[in-house]
Amino acid sequence: MDLLWDDKPKEECGLFGIFAPEKEIARLTYYGLYALQHRGQESAGIAVSDGRKIVVEKGMGLVSEVFSPDLLAGLQGKMAIGHVRYSTTGSSLLSNAQPLVVHFQNGMMALAHNGNLTNAVEIRQELGSQGTVFQTTIDSEVILNMIARYRRHSLEDAIIKTMIDIKGAYALLIMAEDKIVGARDPHGLRPLCIGRLGERYCFASESCALDTIGAEFVRDVKPGEVVTIDDAGLHTRFGTPQERIAPCSFEYIYFARPDSTLDNLNVWESRRQMGVQLAKECPIEADVIIPVPDSGTPAALGYAQTLGIPFEEGLLKNRYVGRTFIQPTQELREVAVRIKLNANKQVIHGRRVVMIDDSIVRGTTSSKLVEMVKGCGAKEVHLLISSPPVKYSCYYGIDTAEREKLIANQMNIDEIRRFVGADTLYYLSEEGLKKALGSDSVCLACFNGDYPTTVPKKFSKEDMEC
Amino acid sequence: MDLLWDDKPKEECGLFGIFAPEKEIARLTYYGLYALQHRGQESAGIAVSDGRKIVVEKGMGLVSEVFSPDLLAGLQGKMAIGHVRYSTTGSSLLSNAQPLVVHFQNGMMALAHNGNLTNAVEIRQELGSQGTVFQTTIDSEVILNMIARYRRHSLEDAIIKTMIDIKGAYALLIMAEDKIVGARDPHGLRPLCIGRLGERYCFASESCALDTIGAEFVRDVKPGEVVTIDDAGLHTRFGTPQERIAPCSFEYIYFARPDSTLDNLNVWESRRQMGVQLAKECPIEADVIIPVPDSGTPAALGYAQTLGIPFEEGLLKNRYVGRTFIQPTQELREVAVRIKLNANKQVIHGRRVVMIDDSIVRGTTSSKLVEMVKGCGAKEVHLLISSPPVKYSCYYGIDTAEREKLIANQMNIDEIRRFVGADTLYYLSEEGLKKALGSDSVCLACFNGDYPTTVPKKFSKEDMEC
Amino acid sequence: MDLLWDDKPKEECGLFGIFAPEKEIARLTYYGLYALQHRGQESAGIAVSDGRKIVVEKGMGLVSEVFSPDLLAGLQGKMAIGHVRYSTTGSSLLSNAQPLVVHFQNGMMALAHNGNLTNAVEIRQELGSQGTVFQTTIDSEVILNMIARYRRHSLEDAIIKTMIDIKGAYALLIMAEDKIVGARDPHGLRPLCIGRLGERYCFASESCALDTIGAEFVRDVKPGEVVTIDDAGLHTRFGTPQERIAPCSFEYIYFARPDSTLDNLNVWESRRQMGVQLAKECPIEADVIIPVPDSGTPAALGYAQTLGIPFEEGLLKNRYVGRTFIQPTQELREVAVRIKLNANKQVIHGRRVVMIDDSIVRGTTSSKLVEMVKGCGAKEVHLLISSPPVKYSCYYGIDTAEREKLIANQMNIDEIRRFVGADTLYYLSEEGLKKALGSDSVCLACFNGDYPTTVPKKFSKEDMEC
Amino acid sequence: MDLLWDDKPKEECGLFGIFAPEKEIARLTYYGLYALQHRGQESAGIAVSDGRKIVVEKGMGLVSEVFSPDLLAGLQGKMAIGHVRYSTTGSSLLSNAQPLVVHFQNGMMALAHNGNLTNAVEIRQELGSQGTVFQTTIDSEVILNMIARYRRHSLEDAIIKTMIDIKGAYALLIMAEDKIVGARDPHGLRPLCIGRLGERYCFASESCALDTIGAEFVRDVKPGEVVTIDDAGLHTRFGTPQERIAPCSFEYIYFARPDSTLDNLNVWESRRQMGVQLAKECPIEADVIIPVPDSGTPAALGYAQTLGIPFEEGLLKNRYVGRTFIQPTQELREVAVRIKLNANKQVIHGRRVVMIDDSIVRGTTSSKLVEMVKGCGAKEVHLLISSPPVKYSCYYGIDTAEREKLIANQMNIDEIRRFVGADTLYYLSEEGLKKALGSDSVCLACFNGDYPTTVPKKFSKEDMEC
Repeated sequence: MDLLWDDKPKEECGLFGIFAPEKEIARLTYYGLYALQHRGQESAGIAVSDGRKIVVEKGMGLVSEVFSPDLLAGLQGKMAIGHVRYSTTGSSLLSNAQPLVVHFQNGMMALAHNGNLTNAVEIRQELGSQGTVFQTTIDSEVILNMIARYRRHSLEDAIIKTMIDIKGAYALLIMAEDKIVGARDPHGLRPLCIGRLGERYCFASESCALDTIGAEFVRDVKPGEVVTIDDAGLHTRFGTPQERIAPCSFEYIYFARPDSTLDNLNVWESRRQMGVQLAKECPIEADVIIPVPDSGTPAALGYAQTLGIPFEEGLLKNRYVGRTFIQPTQELREVAVRIKLNANKQVIHGRRVVMIDDSIVRGTTSSKLVEMVKGCGAKEVHLLISSPPVKYSCYYGIDTAEREKLIANQMNIDEIRRFVGADTLYYLSEEGLKKALGSDSVCLACFNGDYPTTVPKKFSKEDMEC
Repeated sequence: MDLLWDDKPKEECGLFGIFAPEKEIARLTYYGLYALQHRGQESAGIAVSDGRKIVVEKGMGLVSEVFSPDLLAGLQGKMAIGHVRYSTTGSSLLSNAQPLVVHFQNGMMALAHNGNLTNAVEIRQELGSQGTVFQTTIDSEVILNMIARYRRHSLEDAIIKTMIDIKGAYALLIMAEDKIVGARDPHGLRPLCIGRLGERYCFASESCALDTIGAEFVRDVKPGEVVTIDDAGLHTRFGTPQERIAPCSFEYIYFARPDSTLDNLNVWESRRQMGVQLAKECPIEADVIIPVPDSGTPAALGYAQTLGIPFEEGLLKNRYVGRTFIQPTQELREVAVRIKLNANKQVIHGRRVVMIDDSIVRGTTSSKLVEMVKGCGAKEVHLLISSPPVKYSCYYGIDTAEREKLIANQMNIDEIRRFVGADTLYYLSEEGLKKALGSDSVCLACFNGDYPTTVPKKFSKEDMEC
Repeated sequence: MDLLWDDKPKEECGLFGIFAPEKEIARLTYYGLYALQHRGQESAGIAVSDGRKIVVEKGMGLVSEVFSPDLLAGLQGKMAIGHVRYSTTGSSLLSNAQPLVVHFQNGMMALAHNGNLTNAVEIRQELGSQGTVFQTTIDSEVILNMIARYRRHSLEDAIIKTMIDIKGAYALLIMAEDKIVGARDPHGLRPLCIGRLGERYCFASESCALDTIGAEFVRDVKPGEVVTIDDAGLHTRFGTPQERIAPCSFEYIYFARPDSTLDNLNVWESRRQMGVQLAKECPIEADVIIPVPDSGTPAALGYAQTLGIPFEEGLLKNRYVGRTFIQPTQELREVAVRIKLNANKQVIHGRRVVMIDDSIVRGTTSSKLVEMVKGCGAKEVHLLISSPPVKYSCYYGIDTAEREKLIANQMNIDEIRRFVGADTLYYLSEEGLKKALGSDSVCLACFNGDYPTTVPKKFSKEDMEC
Repeated sequence: MDLLWDDKPKEECGLFGIFAPEKEIARLTYYGLYALQHRGQESAGIAVSDGRKIVVEKGMGLVSEVFSPDLLAGLQGKMAIGHVRYSTTGSSLLSNAQPLVVHFQNGMMALAHNGNLTNAVEIRQELGSQGTVFQTTIDSEVILNMIARYRRHSLEDAIIKTMIDIKGAYALLIMAEDKIVGARDPHGLRPLCIGRLGERYCFASESCALDTIGAEFVRDVKPGEVVTIDDAGLHTRFGTPQERIAPCSFEYIYFARPDSTLDNLNVWESRRQMGVQLAKECPIEADVIIPVPDSGTPAALGYAQTLGIPFEEGLLKNRYVGRTFIQPTQELREVAVRIKLNANKQVIHGRRVVMIDDSIVRGTTSSKLVEMVKGCGAKEVHLLISSPPVKYSCYYGIDTAEREKLIANQMNIDEIRRFVGADTLYYLSEEGLKKALGSDSVCLACFNGDYPTTVPKKFSKEDMEC
């Protein structure tokens, strides 16, 4: 639907949870999800527990579209968990929305899940061979069935046992009648952090959601950790075997909000550092540095500051572009990108331009932007990318294109340069990225194929979804 | 919401299913459900199978509100089952809508269900103790889990085994990838019939749905029978122990459409015969016979014809009253009934009036109607009811009021007469009703407490729903 | 859209107005319009005045669809007028919805109008030649411009002067800041009556709206009368030249609600008398008399009572058919009528049937019904129509088909009989209709072309609308 | 509704028009309005003419909400004009949406209008005294009535005569059946420019709309000029007395899109120059310069570049904040600003911060932002405003707050500084603003009360609207 944004990978989910009987927990969850809206725009849901039963509301669309004041007012309780989701289109969308709520022998529980299991198909088959029926195609239903199998244990123990069985990437929030349990896969692939609001605790996928509700950042949930928040405060458990730590680097490159801090690294600053590294690796003699807004901005600033070249706004966004608009017909195809971005001739005309973007997936948008900038009279257009070429699929909850559609999987860098029409095309090196992130232990699998887990032989979107 | 219609019992579901690869099966199901709309107005759904997978669409509201031409066009396949449902209000409504579709080890199946199990709670507990999770509060999920337990058998055998385990009232349509199975509980409490369209077969709760799509009536599904329709035609199986046959008498008295024929008895004619019996049991010297439209009309005609007194329309309905309108405030409370029914003074003024209704549940509407007729200058108002007093709750899928709200459970007939303000109040006797129905083996439990099955000790709406 | 109901003429508007500062005037108007919903289902509107300014809300759809409790609560004031409208489709629908509200030199005024002017085009041209601009294509805008021209007179005098200028059929409600004026054309073509609620007065197109809100019927507005209701009560004025009195006979035959009394004649009784007259003119030896519901019912009763033949329900309506449903494709065309009406075989099989309908416009539905009844095994089907053949267009606010589509304009009666496939076809005579209505001075122009006013040479729907 | 954005003035309209029989004129207008969405988000409309008649579609909401592909496909013709509008809330909103279409003696015409007349009330009274009725409360209806008065002249002459009668600020697009006429008030207060697409011409409020549809910028419409586009190309006329030229300075400061060029000055560059001037007038020794996004960004860059201090993103926007979300309750009031903007601690902590915003209206948002930045550990916060203090109301189509709510009208600068809590508060001087705009002849009335026209004694929003 969206020519420009379609050319970026998609994050699949955002989570928020809070235990605070004396507060308006549904409203706080609403604002928390609002802050995490960039992690998923297709569906949103909030489940609340009043200590005895769990009630859930979910729907298709943005948080602000799904929840009316009336709906929110109906969600009273002591604690809440919420979920936003990106998903493929299809008629079964709503049934796949989260949180997913089930009744089981110990009562009710609700699950919100971000990430993808890599052995969900195998576990589904195993459960099916025991007579289990499934109503959705999402991993979350597998996880809830596993926990119910371990129902004779405490909820935390049942979750740890389930975490030993399941493989892949996940951040989980599981709400029972009287507590919320947050857990993160042993690799720490997907983010999850803890906040404090007065005496009470909350969870969020990113720290920006804590800022929004005025909560104080406490710490990240550790890889493999199981954290419970309830009437007595915060409790923690570990129980899964230790694994290679590998937080997703793409959260820093593109997904996470720049004002979030994940695993002790500020996202905006990490992006600026990518620009600094780019300046070291590929300094270009230019008149002006322009970002592809908004995610290219901090890297462009870092690059400009390092080289002492002016940073200006050469591409300007239409701030009113929504998720939907009527697509141009063939005759008006060229209009599509211009609806969202317009080149600012004044800044560009007669100049040597360095344009900085965070990544290239299929290359179609990049070529349109280079053309637009050249059309405004730029003398040279140098395209610098603040991450390495994306060559491999992600099995951990990121929807890049299929491997065959990744331009860097099909062409070498000079071919891509010619395809997009730039005078220079340079990608940040893996080493440069690691330096910018200040860490060697991040997941770079989409760049180099070095997956921290075994991955499924064949993998279809239908098999596994967050 | 609806002062007038709220004072009637509610039927809980209507079913339609068709196997016809060469026809527009979703459209035919749409029209079939349209004809059965009186059996449930809260939600509607259609599931289709193309021989390999099942797709379902469902939503809240009338059939015409849930299905757009686009939605219907998306439902392509070889066979379809559909469902309309009456239900209580609440946020979990949509998740309880049917057909319910599940994946299990043998593939997919969809279920549409009319009726109530009387041992659903026990079976749920049993399944829960084995680690099963439930996502709805409806009986149908229990039934599907049972069938999945018997997955090593053929679908028909799995259904028969399940029917031996479950107790209560049900008509079922179960669609697998390649067939539709229809089944009726051993008592025949809820109706289900078979139609033929060319070489192909279909199922419907009432014969009026067959008429609507131009299908020929074949026969009723027999109590305890399991009928399969597939590419090879029609197959039948019996396997449950024989039980006392007891079709629901309220289908004839109020629920079913008058143009339907259930178990070989035309509903309109059965109602006319109730009027004939009323005339024999309680002949009144009057000037005019008026029905409470529309369900009281055939009995009023039978009564009038038998006694030779003119039948006229003394109460007229607003044909545009929908399910929703803005309720009168306290100040305008008296408007509520007049929005729907208006007395026709010309017919009533100065006359001795016999007013015939099919049943009284709480008595509030009856008292308003008597007052309205008297207000138009009737000399006498005699209220005759074409069924016996409703004194007991139904456990088989009919939502009468709770027992304490049934006026006949709280007052004797003369007290009721004074409450409604009529000069005479007479209820048809059980004997008269049986004569009108031409049968001794009907379920009269709501009148006399003689339930054809064991019934649960305590029963809450939440426990069991169709 | 509606195969069955499309074959009936369409009434174009319904009016309601009330002056009652101490009451919930918007709610009362809502219920009044609810009772008049049969007079127009395409748009609805309510305007209120608080004594200083007029506020209006209107929208497309039924009264219950247009007005939410919130919208209604926003309409506070001392008096209100409301309007329901039938109209042709088209994008400009909403702008043509009423009441129409204007600012002029004396303040604000709102107009609700039922009927059609026959000289609207001429007046529009005259006003245009003086520089007037028009924003709608409805007569009402012409009327308001005329009243503004006479702004130096009192509102009542300005209305009388306007009534002398305009020709045709109209009932009008004009609300200024401090009063409501009701007026009826000098022929009395369109109905309007006065009610009393406590000390306050109201207007309605039909008396059934008075019953609904609990108001007492006072009297009809007289042809040519101008009635004001305000803080001081009820005032009346006459001022237009006297004309031939000719209330519309089709209000009795089909449009008006049977529980209404118009110009001192009860609609239901007038229809029953049409059946009595039919019995005198065309007695048939039959086994059963069946109506085409619902408008054919009283005539069928009158016919049956007069001849002593049983009246039964041989055709039954689906009470849940709404205004919209997905149309059958060509393959399923025959389903269309069966969705709305189903024949009751039990009543029809093996019998000689007299079927009574109120009118035939194009004949398509009649032929389908005869076929359906014969298909159920009727030995004979005699179709009797309780009005004369419709041969001429109406210029007074009724949308019959164009003259060429009127079957009685194209065929003689025996040809129509063969077209519909009946054994007998008989139309009530004009004399019989007059006897049933107890009056010689009704408008029968659609039957005999005797128009009470001069009519436009050429006439297109676009020129003039209520 | 919108705490943050509510504290900015509101532009009242955006216009687009195109004559191009061989192109998809409705789609091009849709994209043109999309580009102008920032000029009005409450309603949108498009009128097309096929050479014989004019059809219009309009509705409440964003362009993307009002127009579906179906609606757009229904708008076929040779030319189109479109309008987006900001307006006050209220039930009469839709009736005030534009384009406004009327029938008059010469045929039909449609008007789209940006700006406010200062003598609309007087003209309305004059027209009213001649019997004219009005259906809206917008100036546009007055203009159309005036043109109709001059109907005996050519359309262009009628427009010039009308322009001599009306006073105030306006850009107009008037579409007759066969041409579009664009006009701009003699002061040039509101912008309007001309573009060329192949051989055809178009009009737009800002040049960014021309870029979006791929049209070439031709020139601005001159103050007092009347430009016709039709089948023969472009024609121009002047006829109004010459007046003081005074384009609105606030278009540059805040309203217009930064990628637009108005009256030969690029908006982004003009804003950067305001920052350069600020640096000259008020250089501050700071560690980091941060903008209040997005409108403060170019000035912050100009300031930072001039002084050689790093520019960084210290406040980050939630890109998914829509026009509506559920407002925080009193308890969560502090959440309101954080939902939209979050401070980036990394950039701010321990630093001396200069924060640059374009204007202050009421001061409430500024104080929240200063507090937020201080809360992140800034050592100093200096607030610099890239325009002078707003002290006077605008009569020309900008909705600033009422004069009493303008903080600069109530407090001196040091009082404001204390109110917002900044260490320094500095406003750009009028001289500095003129230098940045490179012009002495701009309207600065909202800063200094020097209005280029006479202004109404008393003025209420109800009297005059664009």
